[in-house]
Amino acid sequence: MEPSKRPRNVLMRNINSNVTVKLKNGTKFEGRMVQCDDYMNIIMEGAKEIFDDKQLASYGTIFIRGNNVIYISIEQ
Amino acid sequence: MEPSKRPRNVLMRNINSNVTVKLKNGTKFEGRMVQCDDYMNIIMEGAKEIFDDKQLASYGTIFIRGNNVIYISIEQ
Amino acid sequence: MEPSKRPRNVLMRNINSNVTVKLKNGTKFEGRMVQCDDYMNIIMEGAKEIFDDKQLASYGTIFIRGNNVIYISIEQ
Amino acid sequence: MEPSKRPRNVLMRNINSNVTVKLKNGTKFEGRMVQCDDYMNIIMEGAKEIFDDKQLASYGTIFIRGNNVIYISIEQ
Amino acid sequence: MEPSKRPRNVLMRNINSNVTVKLKNGTKFEGRMVQCDDYMNIIMEGAKEIFDDKQLASYGTIFIRGNNVIYISIEQ
Amino acid sequence: MEPSKRPRNVLMRNINSNVTVKLKNGTKFEGRMVQCDDYMNIIMEGAKEIFDDKQLASYGTIFIRGNNVIYISIEQ
Amino acid sequence: MEPSKRPRNVLMRNINSNVTVKLKNGTKFEGRMVQCDDYMNIIMEGAKEIFDDKQLASYGTIFIRGNNVIYISIEQ
Repeated sequence: MEPSKRPRNVLMRNINSNVTVKLKNGTKFEGRMVQCDDYMNIIMEGAKEIFDDKQLASYGTIFIRGNNVIYISIEQ
Repeated sequence: MEPSKRPRNVLMRNINSNVTVKLKNGTKFEGRMVQCDDYMNIIMEGAKEIFDDKQLASYGTIFIRGNNVIYISIEQ
Repeated sequence: MEPSKRPRNVLMRNINSNVTVKLKNGTKFEGRMVQCDDYMNIIMEGAKEIFDDKQLASYGTIFIRGNNVIYISIEQ
Repeated sequence: MEPSKRPRNVLMRNINSNVTVKLKNGTKFEGRMVQCDDYMNIIMEGAKEIFDDKQLASYGTIFIRGNNVIYISIEQ
Repeated sequence: MEPSKRPRNVLMRNINSNVTVKLKNGTKFEGRMVQCDDYMNIIMEGAKEIFDDKQLASYGTIFIRGNNVIYISIEQ
Repeated sequence: MEPSKRPRNVLMRNINSNVTVKLKNGTKFEGRMVQCDDYMNIIMEGAKEIFDDKQLASYGTIFIRGNNVIYISIEQ
Repeated sequence: MEPSKRPRNVLMRNINSNVTVKLKNGTKFEGRMVQCDDYMNIIMEGAKEIFDDKQLASYGTIFIRGNNVIYISIEQ
């Protein structure tokens, strides 16, 4: 497998994209992913926290610890 | 055991197949697995999220963190 | 302890046997174990998924992530 | 501490003893421990699966993944 | 990726900022983050513990073990 | 910190003491700790298993897997 | 970051302070922290175990396994 094909490289190439991050506690964060690393630690800017389709809060800069992440979907 | 016989190599050989990924939170993702790695981090394209046989959402590109995966079944 | 005596070697010697794999979420998979590795990642073929003695589904080829496994019983 | 004094060595010296293995999901397995390793992966033969003092099933050869084990009591 | 771009470096540059730390048990801590490390172990000063928007307690100096952290939001 | 000051060394010096071991599933074991290691794997002899102040069982020799331990209190 | 600035060093400098240790199972221990290590294994002396503001028990010497710790607050 070429290095450029690894899932985490795909993630890195999407830095600065708008993403939805779903966490194990059931909340979602929607916003711009400005940083991430191999462990899925993510920094988002302008993120909205959503639970059961309701917005709970919004954040300027938020750091999400990677082990809480279920998935990251990348906005087209 | 020859390297080519390892479970993860079988998974790698099925990149670009249609798969169903079952997660620990009970949801399933059906779609094309375009990337995966040894940790079971997976990138899917055109994936549908399903819970209790109902489609919840669909995604263009989604990154699933490997530690959430229960199983991956490969469409024949 | 001689290497041939380790539990995982016993498992390896049973590749291609029919097995029942019980997972932490309470489901069982019955079928042929065609691959496994030290982490208990398993590939089964012709597996039936069973919960509370009812068959939920069947699979051609399924990859089970090892950390979900409680036990593997080997058919005599 | 001398190596022979470590808990896992005590376990190794009891290979082929009858044991009761209690798992995190509340079930117990009673039978002969024929193999074990440092991670507490165990192979039992002639094991009975017990829950709430009722026998659920019996197994010829069963492999138990170590991370599910709470305790192993050794029959005197 | 340049080292200065990693999520944890961003966190380090915010030492002495006011932050909100959300934990897996549902509580939040609001106060000044005076130390943190790569594992997300955090020392806060003057922190308030909050659950369901109610203040439960306040602390002079508190050490939070990193594996409990869901996210850290940085006050603008 | 001098090596003799580490928590695990204190534990090692209490081998053969009577202890109470509290596990994550809510049960306690009271008896003599005859072995332990850095991972908190413990061998007890003459242990009583207690839940909600009621004795459930007693054991000649029991091996407790360290990752289940919450605390070990040492009888004075 | 200078080594003396790390969270765990701050913890080490508070050995022999009175602390409150909150665990994942909801209990708290209040008493003197006489030892701790990098993994947050802690030895306390004269500790009271508290749940829902009620004292459940007290202990001469207690060893708490680090992975159960949510936070340690240091008495001023």
